[in-house]
Amino acid sequence: MAFPGKIGVLGGGTWATALAKIMLNHEKHINWYMRRPEQIEDFKKTGHNPSYLSNVEFNLDRITFYSDITQIFEDSDTLIFAVPSPFLKGHLEKLDRRIDDKFIISAIKGIVPPDNLLITDYLHRYYNVPSENMAIVGGPCHAEEIALERLTYPTIACPDIEKARVIAEVFNNRFVKASVSSDVVGIELAAVLKNVYAIASGICHGLKYGDNFQAVLVSNAISEMERFVDTVSPIKRNIQDSAYLGDLLVTCYSSFSRNRTFGSMIGKGYSVKSAQIEMEMIAEGYYGTKCIREMNEKYNVHIPVADMVYRVLYEGASAREEIKILREQILK
Amino acid sequence: MAFPGKIGVLGGGTWATALAKIMLNHEKHINWYMRRPEQIEDFKKTGHNPSYLSNVEFNLDRITFYSDITQIFEDSDTLIFAVPSPFLKGHLEKLDRRIDDKFIISAIKGIVPPDNLLITDYLHRYYNVPSENMAIVGGPCHAEEIALERLTYPTIACPDIEKARVIAEVFNNRFVKASVSSDVVGIELAAVLKNVYAIASGICHGLKYGDNFQAVLVSNAISEMERFVDTVSPIKRNIQDSAYLGDLLVTCYSSFSRNRTFGSMIGKGYSVKSAQIEMEMIAEGYYGTKCIREMNEKYNVHIPVADMVYRVLYEGASAREEIKILREQILK
Repeated sequence: MAFPGKIGVLGGGTWATALAKIMLNHEKHINWYMRRPEQIEDFKKTGHNPSYLSNVEFNLDRITFYSDITQIFEDSDTLIFAVPSPFLKGHLEKLDRRIDDKFIISAIKGIVPPDNLLITDYLHRYYNVPSENMAIVGGPCHAEEIALERLTYPTIACPDIEKARVIAEVFNNRFVKASVSSDVVGIELAAVLKNVYAIASGICHGLKYGDNFQAVLVSNAISEMERFVDTVSPIKRNIQDSAYLGDLLVTCYSSFSRNRTFGSMIGKGYSVKSAQIEMEMIAEGYYGTKCIREMNEKYNVHIPVADMVYRVLYEGASAREEIKILREQILK
Repeated sequence: MAFPGKIGVLGGGTWATALAKIMLNHEKHINWYMRRPEQIEDFKKTGHNPSYLSNVEFNLDRITFYSDITQIFEDSDTLIFAVPSPFLKGHLEKLDRRIDDKFIISAIKGIVPPDNLLITDYLHRYYNVPSENMAIVGGPCHAEEIALERLTYPTIACPDIEKARVIAEVFNNRFVKASVSSDVVGIELAAVLKNVYAIASGICHGLKYGDNFQAVLVSNAISEMERFVDTVSPIKRNIQDSAYLGDLLVTCYSSFSRNRTFGSMIGKGYSVKSAQIEMEMIAEGYYGTKCIREMNEKYNVHIPVADMVYRVLYEGASAREEIKILREQILK
């Protein structure tokens, strides 16, 4: 296996588009898989993704498109997954070959439902991909800002830190400065949790709680994240590093955050269903909330903020009342 | 000395006005000192502070105003200081009596220049106020949000935790939920530092760095705060508590933050002088930056973000170039 070798990007959304842009800053040519052939056709006509980040122009000579997932695996050595977590299984089920001979980078910030496995755990368990041949992309990196070439510091995590360094080199350019880590589980979990907390943050915003309260909420969320991550994967880590805290901050405070917007609509009184329809986008945190809840049946960590979001999204609890209850639990 | 007894508020700005509002939620009557008799006259005519938070109406029967600082000390048992830190000395020099027989609450988030002493250290050293008779107000509490009665969680810190609890009770109402701590030095230092970091945050915003970078900056800032505070006062504390992290977040992310606005103007190319004139308000962090720099001559903590702000504000360094240098120092 060539490493990193030929790079293939999987996904047709904003994040995949931003990643393709990053890859093309380093690579002469990439492979790119999108599920729908129509999207590829429109892309070829216009020179940009027709639906997402359409301000980013691509040189079509430097991209080979695929709507056949088996074929992109045939033709690539390192595959970057950037499809929404709930759709990952569906994509992989169409595969007509093994993938354990490839290097996989998961840029998916979510868990695979209904298995509630982290992406790397899922790929290891069901597709036998060796852990040392998987990396993840973590840290604060809103795709919209990458499109604008605003300076971004992602973290590349891999159990084999040397491989993380090689991947980081592929990412690095004028506006991307990647750092490396070996804490795959911690960073993957943090990425799932921050979406849940961004929904909480949005709910409070929608209910007209102010900045003072948001700051208390986010301070509680980072401690909650630390408790949960340290329980599931008890290694030494600094939760204040940007792969954890930074990712939480950008998601809770940025106007680009879909999860925060989703929560904000719930706070304003939209039903979960109508908020989802209105947004026309997947808020990963919706699935993450359920997954964390179910994971926590095993670990029993005190996570009142995530529990609140679960009750509002899945048990029809009143956001207003739930925040009142939460207020009593997070007094400092 | 009655405790808390009769309460007096010192200061005529937004923060003093918000504190007076909070006090009057609990107390039937308060004393209130403002330096300028004209401001008191206008207040009495209109029923609100003529210059700040003028949407907050006060019942004048419940307030005795003073422009004589000695007299308000004569007539009060517990005094809340809410004047800008650079003006504290000037106010106290007009005093014609001792103050060591009073309970003092410092709500000043700053250091006394040019002595570079925390407020409580200054009052202890120069006015012999016993440490156990001083408390501070920390945590995320923008005055503008208190005016709007948005839920706020301040922290009352006093070496005597029982006294902190008594003061917290005076603060508590429908929209204020105070918690208590004994970490006076840590919370006072955090309050000074967060203003410096808010300037840094504003500078980056003014230079058009995006949310991804801000998240990395703030993640670095909290670790920098932790290093500095733990060096100056090495006790066990959780820097993620809202008195530290929360206060940092609200200051770096809120549009109400004067320090962030000040930094943003510098980032956009205003000179320090013209930014100050334009704002017509004291950005505490301007003084805090110098004080932290001078304090750190003794402690030598690695604080690249605060150092950057110092060079920009006091040594005429280019904000654009300084952020470029900082970028190399904060890689994750």
